Amino acid sequence: MATTAGGGRRGQMHLPHRSVQTPVFMPVGTAGTVKAVAQDVLEALGAEIILGNTYHLYLRPGHETIRRMGGLHRFIGWPRAMLTDSGGFQVFSLSQLRKVTDEGVRFRSHLDGSSHFFTPEHSVDVQIALGADICMAFDECTEYPAERKRAEESLRLTMAWARRSMDHFIAHREGVPWREEMGGRTQSLFGIVQGGTYRDLRRESAEKLVEMGFDGYAIGGLSVGEPRELTLETIAEVLPLLPADKPRYLMGVGYPDEIEQYARMGVDMMDCVLPTRAARHGLLFTSEGRINIKSKQYAEDQNPPDPACACPVCQRYSRAYLRHLMHSGEALSGTLNTIHNLAYYLGIMERIRASLIP
Amino acid sequence: MATTAGGGRRGQMHLPHRSVQTPVFMPVGTAGTVKAVAQDVLEALGAEIILGNTYHLYLRPGHETIRRMGGLHRFIGWPRAMLTDSGGFQVFSLSQLRKVTDEGVRFRSHLDGSSHFFTPEHSVDVQIALGADICMAFDECTEYPAERKRAEESLRLTMAWARRSMDHFIAHREGVPWREEMGGRTQSLFGIVQGGTYRDLRRESAEKLVEMGFDGYAIGGLSVGEPRELTLETIAEVLPLLPADKPRYLMGVGYPDEIEQYARMGVDMMDCVLPTRAARHGLLFTSEGRINIKSKQYAEDQNPPDPACACPVCQRYSRAYLRHLMHSGEALSGTLNTIHNLAYYLGIMERIRASLIP
Repeated sequence: MATTAGGGRRGQMHLPHRSVQTPVFMPVGTAGTVKAVAQDVLEALGAEIILGNTYHLYLRPGHETIRRMGGLHRFIGWPRAMLTDSGGFQVFSLSQLRKVTDEGVRFRSHLDGSSHFFTPEHSVDVQIALGADICMAFDECTEYPAERKRAEESLRLTMAWARRSMDHFIAHREGVPWREEMGGRTQSLFGIVQGGTYRDLRRESAEKLVEMGFDGYAIGGLSVGEPRELTLETIAEVLPLLPADKPRYLMGVGYPDEIEQYARMGVDMMDCVLPTRAARHGLLFTSEGRINIKSKQYAEDQNPPDPACACPVCQRYSRAYLRHLMHSGEALSGTLNTIHNLAYYLGIMERIRASLIP
Repeated sequence: MATTAGGGRRGQMHLPHRSVQTPVFMPVGTAGTVKAVAQDVLEALGAEIILGNTYHLYLRPGHETIRRMGGLHRFIGWPRAMLTDSGGFQVFSLSQLRKVTDEGVRFRSHLDGSSHFFTPEHSVDVQIALGADICMAFDECTEYPAERKRAEESLRLTMAWARRSMDHFIAHREGVPWREEMGGRTQSLFGIVQGGTYRDLRRESAEKLVEMGFDGYAIGGLSVGEPRELTLETIAEVLPLLPADKPRYLMGVGYPDEIEQYARMGVDMMDCVLPTRAARHGLLFTSEGRINIKSKQYAEDQNPPDPACACPVCQRYSRAYLRHLMHSGEALSGTLNTIHNLAYYLGIMERIRASLIP
């Protein structure tokens, strides 16, 4: 990967299902679908890699079902690259009555209250069954704010779990459903840097993970409520500690100006529910700023959502129509809003990549 | 239009926005959207004409808004043909506290309880503002079963309203929003044959409408609960009474075998919410019969919804995935199910048209 003076870098990840151009934004496809958008539309928008959520897919339809269906790619009809998170974040944010021990996490399903136990080994097993191109080590996402002692303890757990994730992954990665049809290739495993907002803990975390030798490195536990300067500081602290030849993934971030800023600092991969979730609530990102399409001021506005946008929604529909769809509770509202927001996010990254070509 | 020995006929309607090949199935786009399906997808599926519902669009966003937006075609981004119903059916089926007089119908909105008064003149005014290629005369859809006396009275009203609809249409049709950009062309107005299941009333209705000289003729008040033999008998009674050179539109019908049968009897146009509404409830029409995609038996079924179908859904997705989407309450479920069902309905008509080419 080439790094510019400013730190931004242009690269490629040669994954089993796709060579992905970086820096890249990854739309979130929680339950095996980027909500409200069909796979062919995602392809046409230029999405090269999408996320699946291990927690959701484990609970429904179940990873063994997906394994028997040939893995997540085939199950959802998505031929390009995929990444699954470890399930850790959702266990901590969505489930009830969770109990954390060194061994793992016991939690109750947010769907039916059933009891489940996740360990690093189990998370890896589930992720191998799902068969995304990239898996994530099981971690605990340290909350903000967190006392020093709490952040230390959380990091100790995450580092032990990273080791166990990798050991289990190496022992079982041959079991990915598509290994044969992909010429014997297997998945990649990324480690996750935690440590809250404590610079020395972040440093310790990064160094330990690099020593373990992952295929890529994520920065987790940011955009969880901390001030933006702290986010920036943490990223700036961690990035130089990571190997230059491995992908760097900033998890769960962020607004358009943030993804641009971080990509220009040298982050290669980002994901966020913001463009898709905000879309379903009527918030559109445009070259003129954010607009709330529900607003009365758009009731008879014949302009496209973003006059500077070349996406299929802006080429065909007006703000007045999108407002009408939302007011009428029509399913097409979520679809069109999401397509535009994803086009906007993917467009930002495309422009950054173009500007980074040596 | 050429008529085959069996009565089926192949034709074209040269409408301002599109020359439509008949027999044709018209997807229903109630509130200015064929629920859950984007306009470019409808075009790719081969839909040449879609419906809009006057009642819904009048209440929200309002016909004056749509007029100011340049009419319904431009408002929803649909360049092909459209038809609006008169609002009569929805006033009678959806609204509350309706009160019918010779003058018109007072009703309360199903959205907010507000009071409205629809007359034939007002329905036509609203439909001219919407600017669909085809408008329908304001009618009362006679319920089934209806006593002879009730059917007679209902028909008397419908015939008087047909006359008033036409007079008002002729006086005001120049006001359609797109007249200038369409080289001075205006909309068409269709009359609606009613009369319940009384053959002589149906005959009287058809003859009176033909005397008035509409641009096309619809058969209304069928598929409202009557036995299928009665539906068939009524259609067979009415069709020969209609001018051979004008389109014949059977309203709100029906299952796949019905639309095939009626098209082969000489019906040129049909519409029905069935393929779209059933899709959202998980009912798929296939060459192997109807399947309920929610069923557990499809949980790990890697076959496409219909192995004989060339639609984009069947080309890409499995029954197992569609079942998962529905179980998970994902928006994509309604979209994909609807695309398949519409492709199935449009495919039936395409095959019939091919078989009718002289």
